[in-house]
Amino acid sequence: MSREAISHRQDGRISVHDSVQEMYERIHADGLSNVFDRYDPQAKIRCNFCVEGVSCQLCTGGPCRISDKVGATHGTCGIDRNAMAMRDMLLRNMMGTSTYTHHAYNAFRTLKSTAEGKTPFQITDVDKLYWMCDKLGIDKSGSKEQAAIRLADFLITQLSSGYDEPPKLVEVFAPEPRKKKWRELAIYPAGVMHEIKDSAASCLTNVDGDHVSMAKKALRLGIATIYGSQIPLEMVQDILFGTPTPHEVQVDLGIMDPDCVNIVFNGHEPWIGVASILAARNPQNQEKARQAGAKGIKITGSIECGQEVLQRFNMDGVFNGLTGNWLAIEPLLATGTVDVFAMDENCSPPYIAPYAKKYQITLVSVNDLVRIPGVEKNFDYKPPEAGNIAQQLIDMGIENFKKRKERKIEPKVPNKVQKAIAGFSTEAVLKALGGKLDPLLDVIKAGKIKGVAALVNCTTLATGPHDYMTVNVAKELIKRDILVISGGCGNHALEVAGLCNPDAVGLAGSGLQDVCRALGMPPVLSFGTCTDTGRMSMLVTEIANALGVDTSDLPVAVTAPQYLEQKATIDALFALAFGMYTHLAPTPPVTGGPELVKLLTEDLEGLTGGKVALANNPEEAARGMEAHILKKRQALGI
Amino acid sequence: MSREAISHRQDGRISVHDSVQEMYERIHADGLSNVFDRYDPQAKIRCNFCVEGVSCQLCTGGPCRISDKVGATHGTCGIDRNAMAMRDMLLRNMMGTSTYTHHAYNAFRTLKSTAEGKTPFQITDVDKLYWMCDKLGIDKSGSKEQAAIRLADFLITQLSSGYDEPPKLVEVFAPEPRKKKWRELAIYPAGVMHEIKDSAASCLTNVDGDHVSMAKKALRLGIATIYGSQIPLEMVQDILFGTPTPHEVQVDLGIMDPDCVNIVFNGHEPWIGVASILAARNPQNQEKARQAGAKGIKITGSIECGQEVLQRFNMDGVFNGLTGNWLAIEPLLATGTVDVFAMDENCSPPYIAPYAKKYQITLVSVNDLVRIPGVEKNFDYKPPEAGNIAQQLIDMGIENFKKRKERKIEPKVPNKVQKAIAGFSTEAVLKALGGKLDPLLDVIKAGKIKGVAALVNCTTLATGPHDYMTVNVAKELIKRDILVISGGCGNHALEVAGLCNPDAVGLAGSGLQDVCRALGMPPVLSFGTCTDTGRMSMLVTEIANALGVDTSDLPVAVTAPQYLEQKATIDALFALAFGMYTHLAPTPPVTGGPELVKLLTEDLEGLTGGKVALANNPEEAARGMEAHILKKRQALGI
Repeated sequence: MSREAISHRQDGRISVHDSVQEMYERIHADGLSNVFDRYDPQAKIRCNFCVEGVSCQLCTGGPCRISDKVGATHGTCGIDRNAMAMRDMLLRNMMGTSTYTHHAYNAFRTLKSTAEGKTPFQITDVDKLYWMCDKLGIDKSGSKEQAAIRLADFLITQLSSGYDEPPKLVEVFAPEPRKKKWRELAIYPAGVMHEIKDSAASCLTNVDGDHVSMAKKALRLGIATIYGSQIPLEMVQDILFGTPTPHEVQVDLGIMDPDCVNIVFNGHEPWIGVASILAARNPQNQEKARQAGAKGIKITGSIECGQEVLQRFNMDGVFNGLTGNWLAIEPLLATGTVDVFAMDENCSPPYIAPYAKKYQITLVSVNDLVRIPGVEKNFDYKPPEAGNIAQQLIDMGIENFKKRKERKIEPKVPNKVQKAIAGFSTEAVLKALGGKLDPLLDVIKAGKIKGVAALVNCTTLATGPHDYMTVNVAKELIKRDILVISGGCGNHALEVAGLCNPDAVGLAGSGLQDVCRALGMPPVLSFGTCTDTGRMSMLVTEIANALGVDTSDLPVAVTAPQYLEQKATIDALFALAFGMYTHLAPTPPVTGGPELVKLLTEDLEGLTGGKVALANNPEEAARGMEAHILKKRQALGI
Repeated sequence: MSREAISHRQDGRISVHDSVQEMYERIHADGLSNVFDRYDPQAKIRCNFCVEGVSCQLCTGGPCRISDKVGATHGTCGIDRNAMAMRDMLLRNMMGTSTYTHHAYNAFRTLKSTAEGKTPFQITDVDKLYWMCDKLGIDKSGSKEQAAIRLADFLITQLSSGYDEPPKLVEVFAPEPRKKKWRELAIYPAGVMHEIKDSAASCLTNVDGDHVSMAKKALRLGIATIYGSQIPLEMVQDILFGTPTPHEVQVDLGIMDPDCVNIVFNGHEPWIGVASILAARNPQNQEKARQAGAKGIKITGSIECGQEVLQRFNMDGVFNGLTGNWLAIEPLLATGTVDVFAMDENCSPPYIAPYAKKYQITLVSVNDLVRIPGVEKNFDYKPPEAGNIAQQLIDMGIENFKKRKERKIEPKVPNKVQKAIAGFSTEAVLKALGGKLDPLLDVIKAGKIKGVAALVNCTTLATGPHDYMTVNVAKELIKRDILVISGGCGNHALEVAGLCNPDAVGLAGSGLQDVCRALGMPPVLSFGTCTDTGRMSMLVTEIANALGVDTSDLPVAVTAPQYLEQKATIDALFALAFGMYTHLAPTPPVTGGPELVKLLTEDLEGLTGGKVALANNPEEAARGMEAHILKKRQALGI
């Protein structure tokens, strides 16, 4: 199947969320360029060669396209259609891995710097620090700071571990049957930095011309990403900021209070966001804000930065919750309530300076990677400067607040605040179940819950309105008694849509309803960010180990119903290596390569147990996952 | 200016080399798909958005294009045309860096493994080993092997040196005024593996939307590539295989002897090529070949693998010289003389299995990156296995020879063997000049030589026939008394075309003629491979230091008159950071971004002193370089 042309405008709406819809209307009326309107002309001139993955711009032998009509059956170099499409996919995945690894490296250096007493952070979860040391065979002697420095140094070194010394993290955290399979398939990775380099080098003109080989490299890269970057970085963030535990939070654009100094942090890395909360807790800063005429300072999270904090911090009057996912950024800025929009890696769209001008916002990058045209205030993140940067943000926020009031910027805040339960993690699930998985396994065995679907993705306009597919796939799944654990921008969609709230239990099938009511939990468990894909894999690993089976044998499926970019695709590649049935929408740009499509959707199942499933319709997507889960249940004899 | 449509067929020819032209005619007559014929349909359906750099396939918000006509002034995300084009350029450059760094990492582990006595290689240039140790402050005590292990470990560690500990190699090898400028511009790099990761991460959707920022990241990546990968890797190869010194070699397709067992090694990394020469020197192997009816075993180099060996090894009856550059690969295979075509990273085109079938060739990959459809024999390079792999190649070659004779494959070898002088290096130049640069500086000051042009590139069909621009730009330069030092596939073009031979002196201007005759040197100095861009920069650094000026003040220019791919473009980025006037052809895919074009061709000169010059005509290109050189001479008062 090829990617269908689906309109993102349905029944006069561009988003399933009333708040975003309302703000879109303001933006549109104010005549500002925005992502929803920019999609229209692009849809008109979309190149079908690009959509199908058979367009290549790499070298001056091209640009090339595959077109049998004119005899262009191969690129100038001789590459075939399958390899052309797979190469672009590998290259994009490598970008996702690089971004996660940038985050990981910053996590490890932040831990080290914190242990050296140079940051405003502290070692919060000491148990997890020692648990990681035990897992990895790291000396725990001396102070916790000394152990943390040893752990940080070890993790930094592991990023670049060589071909002949595969990373210990895979050895320690991956399930035994998987490791065996990965060795057989020659996709057991080296250090993630080597995998990044070698994936990129494999995509060079005239290096790897074989789509099967490149697909295997992509799987290997996926494994390297999860074990080399994601798991250790989330564990380190747990050590620094606490392991997530379920608690009530507030989300959606309605949380913005125009009478406060509002610092919003956006992106994926949480350092400056957390530092800003700590700085805003300082009574002197609150007093400064009040003297400027504000009610106080609030620190609000946007997208994954927000989620990283949301899952670990309580709403304490300073931390204000989460606004939404990346398609809600322009709508958020248009509320006329934001004083500082601080951008950490990644997911800051490039056309926001006009919003800053119109609605009086101070835009700041707080990450070396992020640079936005028209934004002049840019910090490179250095852990020892986190406190100082946070203080500067607060000062900028107070100044901006004054200007915002002087300019009489009219705020427009949608009247919508949604409560959600955030903060699920393997530890939290175990704790809720009384220390062991058996109660969960029992309800699965009994068929109360048919299985588990991990929903991880971004949001995009390619499959209908903003968050339409994500919300409706989740609804279709829970209706079928499939428990959803969610991460990424898709998770924010579900939080804002009310599905991470126990009140949503009525939308679930009767079996799942019973379980949710018994445990007081929502039918969708907010498991964090896209970076928490690693954390989700740890839960799946625990379940597989408890049952004594391979991960590919479990009644589990993965869905990315509105994936946008390269972090999502590398997560999907890991899921395939992990043996998961992986639903993707929209259809990725591979359809120009029929053998590649066959490899991903059929043949791969014989190799890793994983396969790609394509469906741009929520019901069809859910039906596919349900069928897979039932097949696995049958094979397990439950 | 936009990229012009230039035909690669001129006056009935597709190559300036008679040998390649002759073999193309055989291939065409034999009905095999080939790069020259595949270019035609691609030229018909070439996408102008892609040519101009304003097409983006990264995420599901797209694919996008910039088209003012339909109001598509920005990508869906909001990225503008300049950033869209620069982002693709940064991403491609990162691929080149990754490939060089793969080579570098293999060089360092080969040195270590060799010092541990595990490879067939040895430490050949002990002086250079100790010189490197001195330069980098590495303990030389104990045996040379112990020093080599320390050096190798240091270089491996430096690949990943962190943000807060910039690599010592830049500190040690870069000119002082450049380091100052790079610090001011915030383009002083970290370890090259971090630069790879961060460049890739910057190109992710919604991370860096600013073309100026991304251009600076590309410059930084260029600096990291040269000092972090290229220079140390070439120095390590000098330690292992000897520092290049000028000597006579033979090149072109006519060197192939159909009555020998012919092992050809192709690519860029020389490990298995050298190991094969060592193995073929074993009289038992030669005897085995004779028993199979062959005159003996010859080891021949193709493209950069060949050049790496050519510049260090003599033609000893076993090592047989260099066939040509990458567009000569299909023609080489069609000679019906190749028994084993062993492919090391990189530059092995993907559509060669049909040639192997037709002309009876055993295709083998000897590098983990290289995979070619239809090739089943694949080795991952591990230094301790080099000797074993080489022996297997020889055995395969003998078996293939028998089959080739059985099948009565008709050889067709062009009657063309060209002599060239290969092996120039900074050390060799200094030695030829009596130990100091003054004689060279004197002839430059006196105007006998107006200046120096470094010609480094690939070959492509985008600027006319195979090697047309390269050969003619070089001719135009030497005619103008500009000494050419050459590297890369372009260097093979000049060697095959006879310009690296003292006989070519008559093509030079009178001043350069006098100098060449006095020193017995050709007007084009073969300086190695594209990887030797670092080596060339060392010569330029020496000249700048000797004159006490910055590199950007020198009467020096850089040209890449037929660049193909991503290694060439990162070399060009370094040249720009190094302050060089840098001619590029064909025009890179940036013309859709007018501000980006202005940055590269105008504004950059005010930042680094470097600038991009565009010209698809040899005379125009040379005139531009001459004008730049004369301007610099005037500024220096010479």
